[in-house]
Amino acid sequence: MVGAGPGDPDLLTIRGARCLAEADLILYDALSSDAMRAYAPRARWFFVGKRACRQSIGQDVLNRLMIKEAGRGNHVVRLKCGDPFVLGRGGEELLALAAAGIPCDVIPGVSSAVAGPALAGIPLTHRGIASGFAVVAGHQLAVYRPMLEALPTNGSMTVVVLMGLRERASIAEVLQGHGWDAATPVAIIIGAATEVEWRWTGTLAEMGMVDIPGRASGTEGNSAPGLLVIGHVVGIAGEIARAQNQHDASSEARARRS
Amino acid sequence: MVGAGPGDPDLLTIRGARCLAEADLILYDALSSDAMRAYAPRARWFFVGKRACRQSIGQDVLNRLMIKEAGRGNHVVRLKCGDPFVLGRGGEELLALAAAGIPCDVIPGVSSAVAGPALAGIPLTHRGIASGFAVVAGHQLAVYRPMLEALPTNGSMTVVVLMGLRERASIAEVLQGHGWDAATPVAIIIGAATEVEWRWTGTLAEMGMVDIPGRASGTEGNSAPGLLVIGHVVGIAGEIARAQNQHDASSEARARRS
Repeated sequence: MVGAGPGDPDLLTIRGARCLAEADLILYDALSSDAMRAYAPRARWFFVGKRACRQSIGQDVLNRLMIKEAGRGNHVVRLKCGDPFVLGRGGEELLALAAAGIPCDVIPGVSSAVAGPALAGIPLTHRGIASGFAVVAGHQLAVYRPMLEALPTNGSMTVVVLMGLRERASIAEVLQGHGWDAATPVAIIIGAATEVEWRWTGTLAEMGMVDIPGRASGTEGNSAPGLLVIGHVVGIAGEIARAQNQHDASSEARARRS
Repeated sequence: MVGAGPGDPDLLTIRGARCLAEADLILYDALSSDAMRAYAPRARWFFVGKRACRQSIGQDVLNRLMIKEAGRGNHVVRLKCGDPFVLGRGGEELLALAAAGIPCDVIPGVSSAVAGPALAGIPLTHRGIASGFAVVAGHQLAVYRPMLEALPTNGSMTVVVLMGLRERASIAEVLQGHGWDAATPVAIIIGAATEVEWRWTGTLAEMGMVDIPGRASGTEGNSAPGLLVIGHVVGIAGEIARAQNQHDASSEARARRS
């Protein structure tokens, strides 16, 4: 079970690449990049993710497929987006494999919950602003509501919502209804570390109303590949850009004077 | 700025390894493995982390060093344990670089907050158990107390505490005082993905009393390299082991009968 990272094949781990090179069969999700195939030229690649919001094969069928192929002596890699254990059903698949007596190693990956913000210049924690963060599945109100309502309303924990694009208006409503400032900075990041990357920055009040272009949401529908980052750390990316611009401007002024 | 991952050099990303290969100078933290030096045979390596709980150089001195060396045209890699933006002061260092006009790329890494549990067979989320998780800095009561007290007490969010080994008794007390069940499963993981890895599994009530061997805490003191995982997902690792054992036992019985 290998974490593919957020999308860019260069963000795969060295151990993950070695597993791909030795694989006979690779069962991959929608987000694994086509360019990643270069790591596994001799393997069969089989798509088991979502297309247009629908699972291509059921979890039971997938589990049976892994067990059958591994039982025949094949090296099977289950290549999962991001990290296998962050909202990825990795635990369920490991349990099914263990019950069938199939040995399985877990190779952690770069989670898009962390890498998506990082690649946008947003640190999830920052001294004096946030000393922790929460990662929450955002696809079902009944699931995310109790978690979001429990978090500190002052932004001392950054909130990352995965699978929450479609629910963004409701998520903004839940947080504001629970005392979050409407002006809290928010970033929406879709397809981090891929060619279709799309970013938006605004406030919690604006988050529910922003239009996401079809190109960004792609064939995955509006729910799978994006994440919401909510908290004052989102402002750090802008601070970094301003500091850089200010430096460039004063260097230019000095150059003009001399 | 490169995330080194949790310790094992094979858990570095391919892009991170490429940056190391091109570096002139690498400023690294305590946890970066010695074996990682093989990725950067031509670079100077300079230690800027903690030794025996004390910072080897101050943050300001480190920032000035990065700026001076990069200003001279050197490729400088700031190699940070795990991911640069998870409780790693990555944002502060980026701001200092931007203010000095030094361009800097961020290469995300495998965060030990996710990889530590994963390598121990603990999924941070699991359907029907936890649909989210919180990562919290555990070195100061005033910082972690409000975050821990805000989290749902039913374990529907897994809690990962970094830098909280020394405060483990107080953390257990805060959670139990706030309504967490004393029997909530807990794992302590030290030096994940390194040769000195040490793991313990027990309950929230036991967490405060467990002795950590000196070997495991190493020269870092009792605060830096370990993490606490609190929540029912900790039990999944045991479930996987039991399923595997049960399968092995029934296979053996079948073999004996035939």
